[in-house]
Amino acid sequence: MTTPVLSAKPALSTLLDLDARDPLQHKKAQFVLPEGVIYLDGNSLGALPATVPARLERVIHQEWGDALIRSWTAHAQEGRDWMALPDRVAAKLAPLIGAEASEISVGDSTSVNLFKALTAALDVASPGRRVILTDADNFPTDLYVAQGLNGLLDGRYELRRVPAAELSAHLTTDVAAMMVTEVDYRTGERLDMASLTAQAHAQGIVTIWDLAHSAGAFEVDLTAARADFAVGCGYKYLNGGPGAPGYLFVASRHLQARVALSGWMGHADPFEMARDYTPAKDARRFIVGTPTVLSLSALDTALDVFADVDLKQLRAKSLALTDTFMALVAGDPDLTLVTPLDHARRGSQVSFRHPQAREAMRRLVERGVIGDFRTPDILRFGFTPLYVSYADVYRAAQAVLDVAGELRA
Amino acid sequence: MTTPVLSAKPALSTLLDLDARDPLQHKKAQFVLPEGVIYLDGNSLGALPATVPARLERVIHQEWGDALIRSWTAHAQEGRDWMALPDRVAAKLAPLIGAEASEISVGDSTSVNLFKALTAALDVASPGRRVILTDADNFPTDLYVAQGLNGLLDGRYELRRVPAAELSAHLTTDVAAMMVTEVDYRTGERLDMASLTAQAHAQGIVTIWDLAHSAGAFEVDLTAARADFAVGCGYKYLNGGPGAPGYLFVASRHLQARVALSGWMGHADPFEMARDYTPAKDARRFIVGTPTVLSLSALDTALDVFADVDLKQLRAKSLALTDTFMALVAGDPDLTLVTPLDHARRGSQVSFRHPQAREAMRRLVERGVIGDFRTPDILRFGFTPLYVSYADVYRAAQAVLDVAGELRA
Repeated sequence: MTTPVLSAKPALSTLLDLDARDPLQHKKAQFVLPEGVIYLDGNSLGALPATVPARLERVIHQEWGDALIRSWTAHAQEGRDWMALPDRVAAKLAPLIGAEASEISVGDSTSVNLFKALTAALDVASPGRRVILTDADNFPTDLYVAQGLNGLLDGRYELRRVPAAELSAHLTTDVAAMMVTEVDYRTGERLDMASLTAQAHAQGIVTIWDLAHSAGAFEVDLTAARADFAVGCGYKYLNGGPGAPGYLFVASRHLQARVALSGWMGHADPFEMARDYTPAKDARRFIVGTPTVLSLSALDTALDVFADVDLKQLRAKSLALTDTFMALVAGDPDLTLVTPLDHARRGSQVSFRHPQAREAMRRLVERGVIGDFRTPDILRFGFTPLYVSYADVYRAAQAVLDVAGELRA
Repeated sequence: MTTPVLSAKPALSTLLDLDARDPLQHKKAQFVLPEGVIYLDGNSLGALPATVPARLERVIHQEWGDALIRSWTAHAQEGRDWMALPDRVAAKLAPLIGAEASEISVGDSTSVNLFKALTAALDVASPGRRVILTDADNFPTDLYVAQGLNGLLDGRYELRRVPAAELSAHLTTDVAAMMVTEVDYRTGERLDMASLTAQAHAQGIVTIWDLAHSAGAFEVDLTAARADFAVGCGYKYLNGGPGAPGYLFVASRHLQARVALSGWMGHADPFEMARDYTPAKDARRFIVGTPTVLSLSALDTALDVFADVDLKQLRAKSLALTDTFMALVAGDPDLTLVTPLDHARRGSQVSFRHPQAREAMRRLVERGVIGDFRTPDILRFGFTPLYVSYADVYRAAQAVLDVAGELRA
């Protein structure tokens, strides 16, 4: 793992040279990217992997159109049956998040998975505790899911929302579960999962990690961190397509936790059509209804992009790209960096506050530099190391400086 | 509406004549059906509508690959933005189930929608009641969802499971909600939604109807029946593709009911990124996470097939097809009809018990007649009036009789 050391404002020639030596350089050709666009929004919707269209064509014409209902069980020996699709995707996710496939349940949205994770976590939490601790700036759906569940449970829990920097100080013995997102969707600040989990465990607190802006952007090791539960998103850095199914991680020591959303596809034998729910083996029990085969097939193929990716190289490039972008944009009086300079505290994005952020992003998109505006005043740029080059970063930074200059003038 | 009157065992020529006069005859060409197959399993997975592949190609290449994140809001004026996709699908579902689009939330699996429906129903149920009444032979996932929810609520409810025929007798004042499937997935028996709902309401009981085997097979009128809540499946008679998103109906008078699964896409303004959940207008609030765009787009296009379909003609043909099948198969000593002869009590399928049902279905599938085996001894044949012809029924019946004869020999 070599992180290129950059001069304060690298020249384009330096960056082109880095591209030429980039061990992940060949990955960009494995994506379909629109002409004339620098795409810095893979943390909102990942780009289209080049192999996905052919896979979906096969699923639509051969598996749905031709084989029809038989596809649920056809080619089971080669693992190509639809029934096994969630398990196949789990097996591909496992090395990206440092988990066993048997600890991963694939399907449903990230929000629904959060509901599953939270109900399971509260089930195994220390009895009598009534606080759910979370980051006040957590992604809204995480907060809403906790609110919805707590309403259903007659408000017996307190949702304690504190600034991320104060989470440690709030790991007290009245806390049942800590539910946080590893990388803040606005600032790109990364929490220390291993340390926070250890601190939580020391107080008897169960942890739930949202990996929406982590998995696929850098190596996640849930097992090493002793994480209890986690959820993640299929359509950001995993490139599974718009609204791709999410996933749930349940550490093997918690597999007996409550399955609040129990459905037939999580039954030990769905086609036995038994009157009572008997959970399937392992995390498969957390699957609820019939898998969305079209969307899930896209995710399945998208994950193949990672098969030959060294996650340490991925992280090194991510940090180099974000370092480069920060260096190039540094000094503009209207752009206030909100992403940590410290590598250990950074995800794979760079965000700035800007007094006219919404308008600035509109102009950037017009120029073909696609990032995100996040309320109230954030310009957010995501760097997917698989398909963003150093030269892309150079051109994007120039556009950002130009637009900031225009708006100042 | 004319239901053809059939002789006891109609000749093939009679059936070919019915096909020639069938007002829905042109619909079959709007589906891609495999050569040499008579598909009587559209109640498990609907066939591929011919327009779906091109739609998905557009979604994959243009909307995902090319427009990327911009597709969430692009072409909003023409209603082609991804954000509005669930609403567009709701608008197409509305006339099929006798509801307003504003009462329908599209997305998530049928099982997850059942969880939403049940939590909402129990919220508006008469206070203090602690019984959830259901059909003992309800589809397993319906039972499992109720079990999972009840576990989460510390077992405060009793799930009372009674034979369908005894539901009326069990509508007592301790019942909070009655949760039933309109058409039994095994027998094809149809319950009287309007009558049961009225009887339930007379006792102050809220109703939840599972339309998995109803919507798209015949006209459903939730409003006329005064149904309170309903859920349905996108991949059976609606032909939305394997694992297509399901939907939830919430009668407008209950729109204030609990949203237990509250997520960001059900927020009044998702991109405000507010810290507290404020429900969206109407049933949109019951959407949870990001819509599965690929699967949902397939469903959206699949529903266009219904645009010119007279649902009364659909029902008339369904009854004629099932009448024909019953007449043709009648008399075989090993096949015991379990589907009601009475039209009012019949869905769009015909089921028989057979002592070797599993093997019989295996042989039928081998001959290109695709139905379903359902444990323990049911042969199930679904008749989708849009793409099953009278001649298909003739050939299928011959195959059934042949196989039954073979197994007897």
